[in-house]
Amino acid sequence: MVSCPVITLLTDFGLEDPYVGVLHGVLLQRLPTARVVDLTHGVPPGDVRVAGFYWARSVEWFPHGTVHVAVVDPGVGTARGVVAAEIGGHRFIAPDNGLIGEVWAGASLGERRAVLVDVFAPALGLSLRSRTFHGRDVFAPLGAWLASGASISELGAPLAEPQPAPPSGVTREEDPAGSIKFLAEIIRVDRFGNAITALSPQRWCPKVLEHPERFVVEVSGRRLPLVRTYADVTPGAACGLISSFDTLEIAARDARAVDVLPGLGVGSVVRLFLANS
Amino acid sequence: MVSCPVITLLTDFGLEDPYVGVLHGVLLQRLPTARVVDLTHGVPPGDVRVAGFYWARSVEWFPHGTVHVAVVDPGVGTARGVVAAEIGGHRFIAPDNGLIGEVWAGASLGERRAVLVDVFAPALGLSLRSRTFHGRDVFAPLGAWLASGASISELGAPLAEPQPAPPSGVTREEDPAGSIKFLAEIIRVDRFGNAITALSPQRWCPKVLEHPERFVVEVSGRRLPLVRTYADVTPGAACGLISSFDTLEIAARDARAVDVLPGLGVGSVVRLFLANS
Amino acid sequence: MVSCPVITLLTDFGLEDPYVGVLHGVLLQRLPTARVVDLTHGVPPGDVRVAGFYWARSVEWFPHGTVHVAVVDPGVGTARGVVAAEIGGHRFIAPDNGLIGEVWAGASLGERRAVLVDVFAPALGLSLRSRTFHGRDVFAPLGAWLASGASISELGAPLAEPQPAPPSGVTREEDPAGSIKFLAEIIRVDRFGNAITALSPQRWCPKVLEHPERFVVEVSGRRLPLVRTYADVTPGAACGLISSFDTLEIAARDARAVDVLPGLGVGSVVRLFLANS
Repeated sequence: MVSCPVITLLTDFGLEDPYVGVLHGVLLQRLPTARVVDLTHGVPPGDVRVAGFYWARSVEWFPHGTVHVAVVDPGVGTARGVVAAEIGGHRFIAPDNGLIGEVWAGASLGERRAVLVDVFAPALGLSLRSRTFHGRDVFAPLGAWLASGASISELGAPLAEPQPAPPSGVTREEDPAGSIKFLAEIIRVDRFGNAITALSPQRWCPKVLEHPERFVVEVSGRRLPLVRTYADVTPGAACGLISSFDTLEIAARDARAVDVLPGLGVGSVVRLFLANS
Repeated sequence: MVSCPVITLLTDFGLEDPYVGVLHGVLLQRLPTARVVDLTHGVPPGDVRVAGFYWARSVEWFPHGTVHVAVVDPGVGTARGVVAAEIGGHRFIAPDNGLIGEVWAGASLGERRAVLVDVFAPALGLSLRSRTFHGRDVFAPLGAWLASGASISELGAPLAEPQPAPPSGVTREEDPAGSIKFLAEIIRVDRFGNAITALSPQRWCPKVLEHPERFVVEVSGRRLPLVRTYADVTPGAACGLISSFDTLEIAARDARAVDVLPGLGVGSVVRLFLANS
Repeated sequence: MVSCPVITLLTDFGLEDPYVGVLHGVLLQRLPTARVVDLTHGVPPGDVRVAGFYWARSVEWFPHGTVHVAVVDPGVGTARGVVAAEIGGHRFIAPDNGLIGEVWAGASLGERRAVLVDVFAPALGLSLRSRTFHGRDVFAPLGAWLASGASISELGAPLAEPQPAPPSGVTREEDPAGSIKFLAEIIRVDRFGNAITALSPQRWCPKVLEHPERFVVEVSGRRLPLVRTYADVTPGAACGLISSFDTLEIAARDARAVDVLPGLGVGSVVRLFLANS
């Protein structure tokens, strides 16, 4: 237990309504010393894949001991479970709908274990006042509980494996001649108009990180260079780039890639391959 | 006075500009230990009704002793008053334009009293630098003042009754045969496309909470079941639902109600009645 | 060094993605006691002028000793420098692209000095993991460093003058007969539909503050009164107003100025002159 425990929140609630504010209230009611950080609440409603992708790439930037609460929960009110996990000194709470899948599979953080939370256990004292706002009635109270020093084993019985993440949209393709392509779906367009894929070169093709200039990407019928930073292309030009999330994205210098490349958007497929293949 | 006082903010300022950030600054300048929580800043500009509705349904989730500051203030620069109130251990500051009306009328929090703030009282030390940004020049300083331990009676003279809330859009209708209908206006569409009314079954017709299946709702020419949770209808289907705010809303499973029901929006009227009437 | 140091963040990152959340994480990892305030993250992508305008008009509302971090950085990945400054007891970190220009030039805060940060200095321990997210890899760590008590002189060599701010869009015009006009470009439309200029009467024509009624503004082919507050015009009417930022803006009572005056927007030019000229 730390003196001023950090709790992060990741949801699809947006900030237009007081839903996120109420989560903060519930946390402070139960744990007045909590430091609550909004990771983001801008996940598209119900988009478990994007939420899991963002979660897995953000938590490492927080202090050891942080409790991470994520609520993207299209199945609220159904029998879907609630998972709590400890991974390398961080703690996690989420609906067991695949949201934690990437964090769990990546596990760059170290040792891991999970439990299936028994939300009806009297010891937890949850009052399920609503059947539609478990962020307030379940997830925030559990987050406060963990951040106040509880172990996940107090929340429920061990779970061998949380639900896996939704498909990442990344595949590897080998043609008869032996040349290899990676296909990666755009899963998110960010505020800057960057089109983000889940293709991690580090995992799939580390050579890309050493010699990006030997590779090209193809998307929306256009062939683009793979560069190290925006400044490697001329203003207005699009390119492939290994983003700060360490995955392939389509970007443009001083411009929005999705404007520069008409038709580019969530669901578009990017091809990555050696320039001479 | 608590050691780390909580102050919540509810405004229509949005987050695109630094107005909210400046409120945080003013609070920290005057009370470095304050814990400032953004309830929401996404209230439609000038929409006192929605602000009051959200406020009344959010404050109970905060710790005893919290100071709640709300600024939706289309009359800034006119002679409208400023009200401070103590209700069941919580403190409130707002323009006296009806914003506090629902909190005051509901008063589920317990005992209540109010004062009309004398913003020119030298003891308060307010510097009315602008005539357009009283959030910064009046409301935040008053919030810090209260959170630092002052009593509302130091702010002004007693006020019997703050301005009442704007009409909630809820009415009760009895036809000649004696059957009863409730009519409720949609006052807000939230980020998920849920269409929210202010009709509280607990207050108007508690039977709805026990036997929702005996009731139906009618809106946009469609009759919909009243259910307990999204999962009670098929994916894509719309329904009536008692929301986490404990009021009637029109929702849809895995979809946006306002997309499923064309024409549904702020101002639409929902009818609620017994299925067999 | 203060016990609970305040750090503000101003960026164009938006809140839809976890970029801002990660900044908070980096700050808390390095300085667990930090109080992090989001000034705004809604600056239009790459708009250094608006960011600098907002920054210069917000920082005075924060406690002495605050560290202000701004990241609007279209040149990330190029050779643009990083500037740290101390101005009247506040500290500042930003890309040296003009963002700090207005804060520096205004310097209402008092004494000022700046350094050009040597981001490769081993003592700073920066790990430049990405070439696209210096908010995370450079600016947040530097902010934490300063907030933990370091002096800017530990960050790099003295810099006589940071890059100046982009043109403010304000000019002074004198016609042959000797009458004077001020021309001011709209640089931002805020959430309320107010159209903001950088024309500060205090600096350019203090008479305006004493006798606004003697002046008029002209924009979009319309002549409008200059008033002290919204309430000085009839509902729905547009007017000129000295805003809470102490600059000229075009506003409307109970309405959005940009709706009332078609064609009004960023880039429009407002004329301010004596009514009888």
